[in-house]
Amino acid sequence: MNDSVIRGRLKEACGIFGIYGHSQAAELTYLGLYALQHRGQESTGMVTSDGEQMYHHRGMGLVADVFGKKGLLKTFPGHLAVGHNRYSTTGGTLLVNAQPILIRYKDGPLAVAHNGNLVNTQQLREVMERDGSIFQTTTDSELIVHLVARSKKENLSERIIEALGCVRGAYSLVFATPEAVIGVRDPHGFRPMCLGQLDDAYVLTSESCALDIINAEYLRDVEPGEMIVLNEDGVQSFRPFARRQNSFCIFEYIYFARPDSIIFKENVDKARRRLGHQLAQEQPAEADIVISVPDSSNTATLGYSEESGIRFELGLIRNHYVGLTFIHPSQATRDKGVLIKFNPVRGVLNGKRIVVVDDSIVRGTTSMKLVNMLRQTGVREVHFRVSAPPLTHPCFYGIDIPTREELIASSHSVEEIRHFIGADTLGYLSLEGLLKAVPNRADDYCTACFSGEYRVLPNTAGEKEVLERKTFAVKRSQ
Amino acid sequence: MNDSVIRGRLKEACGIFGIYGHSQAAELTYLGLYALQHRGQESTGMVTSDGEQMYHHRGMGLVADVFGKKGLLKTFPGHLAVGHNRYSTTGGTLLVNAQPILIRYKDGPLAVAHNGNLVNTQQLREVMERDGSIFQTTTDSELIVHLVARSKKENLSERIIEALGCVRGAYSLVFATPEAVIGVRDPHGFRPMCLGQLDDAYVLTSESCALDIINAEYLRDVEPGEMIVLNEDGVQSFRPFARRQNSFCIFEYIYFARPDSIIFKENVDKARRRLGHQLAQEQPAEADIVISVPDSSNTATLGYSEESGIRFELGLIRNHYVGLTFIHPSQATRDKGVLIKFNPVRGVLNGKRIVVVDDSIVRGTTSMKLVNMLRQTGVREVHFRVSAPPLTHPCFYGIDIPTREELIASSHSVEEIRHFIGADTLGYLSLEGLLKAVPNRADDYCTACFSGEYRVLPNTAGEKEVLERKTFAVKRSQ
Amino acid sequence: MNDSVIRGRLKEACGIFGIYGHSQAAELTYLGLYALQHRGQESTGMVTSDGEQMYHHRGMGLVADVFGKKGLLKTFPGHLAVGHNRYSTTGGTLLVNAQPILIRYKDGPLAVAHNGNLVNTQQLREVMERDGSIFQTTTDSELIVHLVARSKKENLSERIIEALGCVRGAYSLVFATPEAVIGVRDPHGFRPMCLGQLDDAYVLTSESCALDIINAEYLRDVEPGEMIVLNEDGVQSFRPFARRQNSFCIFEYIYFARPDSIIFKENVDKARRRLGHQLAQEQPAEADIVISVPDSSNTATLGYSEESGIRFELGLIRNHYVGLTFIHPSQATRDKGVLIKFNPVRGVLNGKRIVVVDDSIVRGTTSMKLVNMLRQTGVREVHFRVSAPPLTHPCFYGIDIPTREELIASSHSVEEIRHFIGADTLGYLSLEGLLKAVPNRADDYCTACFSGEYRVLPNTAGEKEVLERKTFAVKRSQ
Amino acid sequence: MNDSVIRGRLKEACGIFGIYGHSQAAELTYLGLYALQHRGQESTGMVTSDGEQMYHHRGMGLVADVFGKKGLLKTFPGHLAVGHNRYSTTGGTLLVNAQPILIRYKDGPLAVAHNGNLVNTQQLREVMERDGSIFQTTTDSELIVHLVARSKKENLSERIIEALGCVRGAYSLVFATPEAVIGVRDPHGFRPMCLGQLDDAYVLTSESCALDIINAEYLRDVEPGEMIVLNEDGVQSFRPFARRQNSFCIFEYIYFARPDSIIFKENVDKARRRLGHQLAQEQPAEADIVISVPDSSNTATLGYSEESGIRFELGLIRNHYVGLTFIHPSQATRDKGVLIKFNPVRGVLNGKRIVVVDDSIVRGTTSMKLVNMLRQTGVREVHFRVSAPPLTHPCFYGIDIPTREELIASSHSVEEIRHFIGADTLGYLSLEGLLKAVPNRADDYCTACFSGEYRVLPNTAGEKEVLERKTFAVKRSQ
Repeated sequence: MNDSVIRGRLKEACGIFGIYGHSQAAELTYLGLYALQHRGQESTGMVTSDGEQMYHHRGMGLVADVFGKKGLLKTFPGHLAVGHNRYSTTGGTLLVNAQPILIRYKDGPLAVAHNGNLVNTQQLREVMERDGSIFQTTTDSELIVHLVARSKKENLSERIIEALGCVRGAYSLVFATPEAVIGVRDPHGFRPMCLGQLDDAYVLTSESCALDIINAEYLRDVEPGEMIVLNEDGVQSFRPFARRQNSFCIFEYIYFARPDSIIFKENVDKARRRLGHQLAQEQPAEADIVISVPDSSNTATLGYSEESGIRFELGLIRNHYVGLTFIHPSQATRDKGVLIKFNPVRGVLNGKRIVVVDDSIVRGTTSMKLVNMLRQTGVREVHFRVSAPPLTHPCFYGIDIPTREELIASSHSVEEIRHFIGADTLGYLSLEGLLKAVPNRADDYCTACFSGEYRVLPNTAGEKEVLERKTFAVKRSQ
Repeated sequence: MNDSVIRGRLKEACGIFGIYGHSQAAELTYLGLYALQHRGQESTGMVTSDGEQMYHHRGMGLVADVFGKKGLLKTFPGHLAVGHNRYSTTGGTLLVNAQPILIRYKDGPLAVAHNGNLVNTQQLREVMERDGSIFQTTTDSELIVHLVARSKKENLSERIIEALGCVRGAYSLVFATPEAVIGVRDPHGFRPMCLGQLDDAYVLTSESCALDIINAEYLRDVEPGEMIVLNEDGVQSFRPFARRQNSFCIFEYIYFARPDSIIFKENVDKARRRLGHQLAQEQPAEADIVISVPDSSNTATLGYSEESGIRFELGLIRNHYVGLTFIHPSQATRDKGVLIKFNPVRGVLNGKRIVVVDDSIVRGTTSMKLVNMLRQTGVREVHFRVSAPPLTHPCFYGIDIPTREELIASSHSVEEIRHFIGADTLGYLSLEGLLKAVPNRADDYCTACFSGEYRVLPNTAGEKEVLERKTFAVKRSQ
Repeated sequence: MNDSVIRGRLKEACGIFGIYGHSQAAELTYLGLYALQHRGQESTGMVTSDGEQMYHHRGMGLVADVFGKKGLLKTFPGHLAVGHNRYSTTGGTLLVNAQPILIRYKDGPLAVAHNGNLVNTQQLREVMERDGSIFQTTTDSELIVHLVARSKKENLSERIIEALGCVRGAYSLVFATPEAVIGVRDPHGFRPMCLGQLDDAYVLTSESCALDIINAEYLRDVEPGEMIVLNEDGVQSFRPFARRQNSFCIFEYIYFARPDSIIFKENVDKARRRLGHQLAQEQPAEADIVISVPDSSNTATLGYSEESGIRFELGLIRNHYVGLTFIHPSQATRDKGVLIKFNPVRGVLNGKRIVVVDDSIVRGTTSMKLVNMLRQTGVREVHFRVSAPPLTHPCFYGIDIPTREELIASSHSVEEIRHFIGADTLGYLSLEGLLKAVPNRADDYCTACFSGEYRVLPNTAGEKEVLERKTFAVKRSQ
Repeated sequence: MNDSVIRGRLKEACGIFGIYGHSQAAELTYLGLYALQHRGQESTGMVTSDGEQMYHHRGMGLVADVFGKKGLLKTFPGHLAVGHNRYSTTGGTLLVNAQPILIRYKDGPLAVAHNGNLVNTQQLREVMERDGSIFQTTTDSELIVHLVARSKKENLSERIIEALGCVRGAYSLVFATPEAVIGVRDPHGFRPMCLGQLDDAYVLTSESCALDIINAEYLRDVEPGEMIVLNEDGVQSFRPFARRQNSFCIFEYIYFARPDSIIFKENVDKARRRLGHQLAQEQPAEADIVISVPDSSNTATLGYSEESGIRFELGLIRNHYVGLTFIHPSQATRDKGVLIKFNPVRGVLNGKRIVVVDDSIVRGTTSMKLVNMLRQTGVREVHFRVSAPPLTHPCFYGIDIPTREELIASSHSVEEIRHFIGADTLGYLSLEGLLKAVPNRADDYCTACFSGEYRVLPNTAGEKEVLERKTFAVKRSQ
């Protein structure tokens, strides 16, 4: 399972959830957001509607903290809702940037929740500003509602289609008005989105684990380029966008999605386990035991153990209380970083030759501390295995991968990295092996973070810089 | 002095403050807002700029609570700033509606703080929405920046002029960009605004008490229809708007403004005291002592005492700790409302014939409780005097006067009101007397709340209803 | 009226409130504490009992903040209650020191609320510690319950009598058990305490303003050395302690008590006004107007005006929002201290010769800033008058007067003080004049803070130092 | 690893930590408490000393929340410290009951932190109250410091020895004065406690994982009945108490202690894994896979897999964000309780015959929900295995096991429980098997919760009731 907060490395953009047709829309959205917590922990929000008014609340922090206050959910009536968990990729960490955003335009109120990242934001923003638009946030979502509002088309679906015809990049979107919930997935299908059913209600959400928690049935993935309209007429599907080459984010299988979810039509658990199998074949090791960097690498590690026959052990205990609040009392303790998150089990490790399976090496410093800690525990040999290829490029489509300068693999060889982290051996999964292990066809995936092959590129150098730097000349503190 | 919070009756819209050219712009704005606290206690905010970035913070509550946190102001660098205290007249009581608002448009970031209320909001909003504008709040301020952003004019001053050419109603505005602070007062001059100087810095603010607190010098009132630009070239004045009939809000002299301020070119203290003189002439009484409903009626009461020769006494002690937080533990104690706010001084009152001077009677219930409380203290006769005419109409220009149904004087005669509140006699100041007592010419004032003569009217019935009802089909809770 | 918080100078120890025999004991205690807020703003607390359990809550901050939370008071059932507002004189500003304290001893639970200060604390503490007692706080109240618990007497009244037989100093106390509320005032009567009635319920409290707010009737003062027991048998009075020389705190009349209260059998308002009369006789001035340092000096100032014939004016406007939360953004603004609290009304003051009446000069710095501010406003002459004699000695009986080194009058002549504060003339009320102006006989009062004549002295040099320094080798932060 | 909060079932009393001789005593205590967070999450506290003053802070909530505030730890100077994490077993969930407590007695300040539960509290309290002691809390710790304070012995060690001579039950204690840190473990050794070293500093703490996090070396267990004094002379060991029969809490190995700790001289991981081996031998099953109820049963499950040869799988994903704050929005969602905490991995479970290993069944409702959820996921057979014998009796020594009425195994047969939870088969570990699997001799353990054989009994029926009911006639809310 994803534990981005805990490990503080790669961060997913967002989780989204929309429901139409249930008298407890707010409660179910709360639970759905709760199950999607791993996709964003900085802020969360919800908009509901009873067909008349729309009700809006956002807050900084975890779902349970923002919406768990006694009696709060009762103040959100309605039979439809959209919700959002955010981890900032564009815009700062501010309440004003929290989603869903709710605006009012010529046709009344409109809410939207967005997962993904556009690549021509800057350009569009300039065009619209030239026409007199104003922006209150730096989020892609505000840009999208501006485009919707400016459309002269007659109904909302058409306006959304026209609006999205202008944007390029990754987006899984859920819109809400007092009458309908509308979901759209970009033509490349970068980010996941699926459709579920609970009695007469329909749900659109990022991962199927948000369906499980409310006992809703997973019906199917929303297809790339598909728009789904939920309203009093039930479910309607449209294919307004030309289908492009599929570009599913392969990192969802490696790290982000919860193992109990189905995304891109496959169980994450199964795909992730095959990464372990493939890794064991490509990067075998002579060792006594194999351990995981818990919890996100557990599944791949089990796969490695199955394929290699090396015994799976719980060599690292993860501290459950790290959470969002841990603050290092001083630099001295900060340097003990890894020890704060994991504690090695000496009885398991002492004197052993071990394989450590992790799902990525970003800057290398955490891995270095981890290897160092294992050695202090009396480990004889450390064979570090990574269930993905070397991370060499930033992501333009919604994952907060650092710039190239910070990615150790963009400038160092595997041997250099091995030396830096202090392992006896180091082995990555090959890109070919990765593509073999995941379901679907190889070219259905975006692998830009490993290969640098971006299938949707910004039009201008300016856009590119924005994507890589994310600057904006305004600083807010609320 | 104004104590709207305490008395919970009439509420002023806002206080505004802008400064250009001082290295401690944030600190001075904090102090200025602090002195203007009586003009709005629901939320407060500030935008500063160092010429590069703009820095923004808003919060619900008092200035000292929002900005008084240790170290916070240090995070707001810059030589220019605008600040705002808000009491909601339009929009709800939400952070999202707090001012100043800060947006980004084609020319970069733009902040604005607004005091007043427009009368053609609805209409403008519809026009702009038809063109594709989106609105995130229900404030007039957002509307104004939309208009500025849509202007094709070349520089900001011209854009502001064009934008304000479209709006009708009351506005004292301060804009800020990284280069300049610009103040505008509407052509009728409904709300006050003045210009001050502190060393090389210039200040634009609602009342001169915000100049005194920072030891700035009061230079002059900003004229109705005047625009003042503060930037590196110093102060420039423009008269881009045709001058209309002056319509100074006469209630500022009666109740809102602090007695130590100069507004509309006169000391509030002097004007308010003349109200007392005039009231004593028009509505004399046979009594032993005259007491004030503290603190807002103190000055008029002193005037009444001077003119009538009846001894001024401190008959009511106001509880300093009522503040914003007092919550009645139960209905039983709620009914003791007046006792919570004032305590009568038995030794002063017992056995006396008293004149009580108040500045207004809104619904009549507070006055009734007050008279009742005085009688319980042993007062022999209560002669209630009001230093203003009967309040009969709502305000469209920024004062939160209840609807006509709630205003006791709109449907009851003076004698009926006297009977309702239980006084022995009741006397209001006449409108003629009021106009005689205040400075300037009689027709320089808006007296709509007493006369129903609105000088700037909404164009449509819809606008009128909005002004009177203030509804919007979106409910937010943050 | 008292505004110690606002002016930050002299601080009263505490306000106490006890009630027996009312089904809304908690609500009435809340209101009573609210009316006594001026006697302590650092923490507040309440203990109620339904005859079975006792219910306890304390918190840092104002009464309305601690108890005003929706629904909280409903969780405090019972027909009896004691409550307390605290301003620390001994012990630190910590929740652990908040009162009432509630302990359990051989006879069950016992709560106590204390106003005053003992002079033999140190000695008693040592004796008890020798016998094995432990102390969790540094408050006198904990000491007193220790003494009660150690008594071998058979019933609570006797145990309290035995316990108080050991202590020396100032105390007005209210005890509560599940069966009774017991009030005791020390034999010297340093601090005020009165008895009131509301239907079948009886109330013991510091000032009668806490009776007024709940519509209870003031019956009489509790006599020095009297113990009053409220239980199912009604009210019983005991005189277990030898009567000593009355030593009423004269500063209650000068500054602390609310003008609408009766204490020491007299209206505070009347006594305080006579101080003004007397001051005008002793220290006349040639002046155009007389102004008050609001609000605590208002009453004496009116008296001065009446006696002198000099016109009373509102020359200083007090900022209502200073409250507890004002934090100076920097040293630069801190030096503007007085301007934060008061704003001068230029129209009233400009060009005038004025008398300023204040109730005390402590360190002199505030007065200096005030005079300076008045001069900047254009005042021609400042005649500073103080409605009390020079403050020269600390108080051992519950008022937080600084040490002698800090009291300007303990080491400077009146002329030197006048020069320091920058007034044209300075006049204090004489001690003789003070004693003439207040009710009761002259030797009924403790005047130690003016004369150094302490009637109850610590036994040891150690005690004396404790009283003057208040140190304890433990620092807590909650 | 322990996750009592998450699973809401059995709760450990406390974790304790003491250090002497390090300039960063507060920081190291913070880290130590952080590693011991699983032993108590309701409140935490710390006392440090620089040899002069003692510094004290306590708060409700997690260690990182209470002490993680920026700069807070810097305000706790000193070379010695004691800290405590609390989960209430006696006393309520209140700040006043948080530990360490810090009192002042004849010899100066004294702090104490306690893990365990005494059985003759009531009796001792009565005796002391008869002599005049007062109690401000209901904690055993306050009782212990009372006993220490009443001792006439000359030095602290002797006073502690005399005090502890009076108490019966379970205690691991750490005392602190400005000069020393003293640790004592009760003569039965109910709760763990060990000694570690970091450079010249020595540490006393509940589990060795608190040593690992600060890179301190585990030296040895503190022996039952041993007192260890840490002061400027280094470490001294005393054996003042007659050795009794060892009574190590066997539940520490089953559930409480972290698997990476050494307690009772053995790695928890090793002991817990042997429970799995033994369980597999005693309670085999025909199944495809074995899964754990994460995380506390992981280690035993691995043991079960090893011994049985059935494949270990990650069938349940635990939600990391449940934490302390999750509040069910309504009863409807409350009934989905298990789904909130765990999500089943359908791909792993569907169509399988599974063994589920858990470490205890308390009321049976959680297990029932879990089995139900697994069946909905498509599991073919559920073989429930418990790595401990049936829980039938409450604990008197510091574990919050419910009363007998609530323990399903105290009144139901294994077959009845199987039927209740809906499993196909249910098997518990036998008591004999348990004792065989853990290190040390069988009669070194307290097994009262499984056998009802309490080795240290209360003297009186009253004490027994107190232990089982924990009532006290005072309710506080802070």
